[in-house]
This record gives sequence, structure tokens and C-alpha cells, in this order.
Amino acid sequence: MSGTTSFDLVSYVGAIREKVDAALDEYLKPEGAPPETLHRAMRYSVFSGGKRIRPVFCLASTAACGGSHERAMPIACAIELIHTYSLIHDDLPCMDDDDMRRGRPTSHKVFGEAVAVLAGDALLTYAMEVIVNEGGRLLGPETALAVAADLTKAIGSGGMVAGQVKDMECENVEVDAATMEYIHRCKTGMLITASVRAGALVAGADGALMEKLTTYGRKLGLAFQIVDDILDEEGSFGDLKSGKGLDSEKGKATYPRVFGLEKSRAVAAGLVTEAKASIEGLGEGFAPLMALADFVAGRSS
Amino acid sequence: MSGTTSFDLVSYVGAIREKVDAALDEYLKPEGAPPETLHRAMRYSVFSGGKRIRPVFCLASTAACGGSHERAMPIACAIELIHTYSLIHDDLPCMDDDDMRRGRPTSHKVFGEAVAVLAGDALLTYAMEVIVNEGGRLLGPETALAVAADLTKAIGSGGMVAGQVKDMECENVEVDAATMEYIHRCKTGMLITASVRAGALVAGADGALMEKLTTYGRKLGLAFQIVDDILDEEGSFGDLKSGKGLDSEKGKATYPRVFGLEKSRAVAAGLVTEAKASIEGLGEGFAPLMALADFVAGRSS
Repeated sequence: MSGTTSFDLVSYVGAIREKVDAALDEYLKPEGAPPETLHRAMRYSVFSGGKRIRPVFCLASTAACGGSHERAMPIACAIELIHTYSLIHDDLPCMDDDDMRRGRPTSHKVFGEAVAVLAGDALLTYAMEVIVNEGGRLLGPETALAVAADLTKAIGSGGMVAGQVKDMECENVEVDAATMEYIHRCKTGMLITASVRAGALVAGADGALMEKLTTYGRKLGLAFQIVDDILDEEGSFGDLKSGKGLDSEKGKATYPRVFGLEKSRAVAAGLVTEAKASIEGLGEGFAPLMALADFVAGRSS
Repeated sequence: MSGTTSFDLVSYVGAIREKVDAALDEYLKPEGAPPETLHRAMRYSVFSGGKRIRPVFCLASTAACGGSHERAMPIACAIELIHTYSLIHDDLPCMDDDDMRRGRPTSHKVFGEAVAVLAGDALLTYAMEVIVNEGGRLLGPETALAVAADLTKAIGSGGMVAGQVKDMECENVEVDAATMEYIHRCKTGMLITASVRAGALVAGADGALMEKLTTYGRKLGLAFQIVDDILDEEGSFGDLKSGKGLDSEKGKATYPRVFGLEKSRAVAAGLVTEAKASIEGLGEGFAPLMALADFVAGRSS
């Protein structure tokens, strides 16, 4: 992890990760809760070394808008549960057919396909439960509902799920730049944008600020996925990520495949610059979001 | 469909079904919405000749408590979307591996496994979106949130998904009566109970009435699944339901398998009597719920 600002992002992210992990551990039912297999599978994927980057975006955004991490914590955790559900389902044999993720066997390799599907279902359901119960209690019904509305829109048939469908449909098919961008915006961008927006919503940000942060999330969410594609193409973490090889080798539509590596790097860098510009001059509270943008541009894993 | 009361249940259910279908048609994105395959798959399963029994429970309950069908409609539809998602995932090759449902090929036979998984995911997500948006608008944030809390609890890792996991774990395994009841309560009973409760919540039913209706839902939900098992065992609709044969032939844990047909019929009849007793003497408004109980006891499909 590297940053061009003086802000100590590594400590910042590390501290948030610990808090998020503790909250997730508290929210999730224990492994022994019946049915045991299901709850073990849910915890296996939630606690598998994820970077918690979406919760970090959510909490950094809420703090920038004057809110507290504590108030936004249920939402940040719900977002991570949603992200985890999407990874479990994406890894299934009928989807991306990945045997390994983050150096460990994927859910269906450990628990079988049926339990993997159901663990994903249960995590998505539980994410909503956390927003409704913990979120409702901390934020009041109106704000909890507003967050739920924003999030469900981002992850449904016009968002994250749409991206996964299109992604699969475009395997081994010639794709144009617009389709490429559509897939990445839906598949990755919308949940990252929703993470940033959720933090702002919780803090009661006004319309103007919400718009700036939405732009920030949109630009950075897309940049995040392009950098993912570049890292994948360079092979720097492909072997770790997937037992079945690189996305590019699966015939996936990736930025480097469409634009080449050089151009992809330029596009990502441009998006990061635009993301930072959208929240420029808003004060010290936005330093973590600025540093996160630099991190996205410079990350190597 | 038959009833022992004078209430005309056939017309009642028919009228509700039409209203529910119209509302679902309005809520769901059109088939042509991108990605087309996904939205076609979502509509294919939602409009596949389902009886809409859960929406009927929800709307009958809300009317009994003095509420209007219109106000509860988003919730009734969300419940049907949830039920549909659960059927799509249950039918998958890695789960019950059913080729046919209600006389038509199952989702994964038509659209492939990946799209079937994702259509289920999108329907669950959209159910929450409908509760949050349409429900929130009609009922206010507090009630919408209360309904969402109740429903998510019923369908998550301690409810419907738990039932499916346990159901699969108990295939070709000797099960005792308690396990049998646990599976059925989770897999079918909790969503039916939640349907009845949701209608009551929307109508602002008080604690005492809520308790009676919860008992009604619990008893009837279990009876519903036992009757399903009996019909399956008798083969009266097994061929239609599943291309792969009867649940009992798959080694599923069923009431007739554990208790025999005679005893199962007696248990179901007893539960229906208890369900009716729990709402006895509450007035004419409860006639539809009474008739629905008789229908569950006497249904042949």
C-alpha cells in the first residue's frame, strides 16, 4: 500500500479493519449456531482476509461529512456482507468457476455448491437484516430506509447483478468500450459508489456534498476495477486469486484486452485525478478519501 | 379447491391473484430492460402460474385487521418475489435438481445455471427494494422497517435458508420427528407465518391480535408443508411438480416417511383445527382466513 499524501493510510485502514472485523464478528451468528454448516460457511467467507475496502470507503466518507464511525458501522458491515455474498456466487462453477480466492479454497470447494449458494443467499439476507435492525436502531427508520433504498438499487438487476450477467455474456466476445465500462460500473463501481454515498447519507450530508461524493465514488469505483484488470493482466496476483488462472485467460472482457495496458493505465490515472478533483478543497476531513484515491491508483494487490 | 365454510374462497383468491399479478407486473422491470436475459429470467419464474398463496395470506390478514389490500400490496408482492427466488435456487442442479416446476422447465433449464442463480439473487434484492421504496412510501419508514425486520428474520440463516440446508443434509438419512418439524417450520412455515404477520403489521394490529395470527400462521404453515408431503407421497402432483420424480423418491425427509400417511393426515388436520381455533370468534373479517385454513386441509394440488 502506498500513498502520495502525507496521510498515514496504512494505520488508518488497519484501525478501521479491526473495528469492522470486530463488528462483523459480533453481528454474525456463532459457528455453532444451527445449522452449523451454514453458519460456518458464512463466517468462512466473511473472515477470509478481505481488505474491507468498501467499509473503509463508507466510514471515511461518513467521517468526512461529520459523522462518526460508530453510527455508520452497521451499514459498513452490511456492505461487506453483500460484497462477500457476491464473491461466493461469482466463484461458483456455473459462474467464474474459481477454486481459490485470497489463497484459500473458495466456499463451494470447502462446503459444496449447494451450501455455497445458500451461504451467499443468507449473507445477502443478513446484510438487509443488519441495516434494518442495527441501522434502524442507530440511525432511525428514515435514514436506515434511505440507505437500504440506495444500496438495493446498486446491487440488483440494474446494478451489481446486471454487471455479473453482462460480464458472463461477454466472455470470449468482442466488446466495445461502452460495454466494457457498463460491466465494470455495474459489477464493481456501483457498490463502491453506494459505500461512499451510504456514509454520507448516515452523516446527513446535503445534496451538493452528496453529488461530489457520488462523482468521487463513480470515478474511483471504475478506476478500482480497471486497476484490478491491469494487475490481473500483469499476473501479479492472478495465481493467488484464482486456481483456474487469470481473468484475461478466461476470455473475460477486461480493460487491457480492449484498450491495451498503456491506455488502461492512463484511463485509471485520469479517473483517480477526477475523483480527487471532485472533493478538492473540502478540508482536512477529506484527507482519508484523498489518500484512498491515491492508494487505488498505486496499489499492487 | 374446497372449503367447509360458506365463504366463496375461489372467487376471493381469484380476485386477489389478479391484483397481485397486476402489481407484480407493474413493479418488475420490463423484459426488454438490460440485461435482457436477466429480466426475462426474473419474469419467467414470477409469472409461471403460482397460486400466490403467500400474498393471499398477507392480504387476508391485513383485511381481517382492518387494513386495505392496497396498502399491503407492496409487501404481498415482495413476499411472492422472495418465494420465487427460493424456488429458483431450490431447483438448481446442486440443490433439488428439478427440471420441471408447475409443468414448465425450471429457470436453469431455460436460462442456464448462472442466470438462474443471478435471477434468484436479483429477485431477493428486488423484494427488499419494493419493501423499502413502495412499502416505505405507502406505510411510512417505521412500519416498512418493522415488516422488513420480521421478513428478513424469517427467510435468513435462522429461517428459510436454514430449512433448505437442513433439508439437504437429511436426504437419505434417518430423521426424528423434531428434526422433521424443524425443517418444515424453517423451509415453509416461517415465510407463511411472516406473510400473515406482515399483513397484520401493516394494519397496525395490537400485540394480542398479532399473537393470535402468529399462532395461526405457525400452525397453518406447518400443515401446508405436511399436506404437500402427503400429496407428493400419493403422487397426485409429483409428476407435474418435478421432472426428477417425487421428493420421497429422492430420499427427502417427509412427514409420511417418518410418521406414515395416516398419522401425517391426522397431524395436519390437528394443526388446521388449532390454527382456526386461534382466530375463532374474532368476527366476520376473519372468514377468509378461516376458509384458507380449510383449503389447506382439503387441497389436492
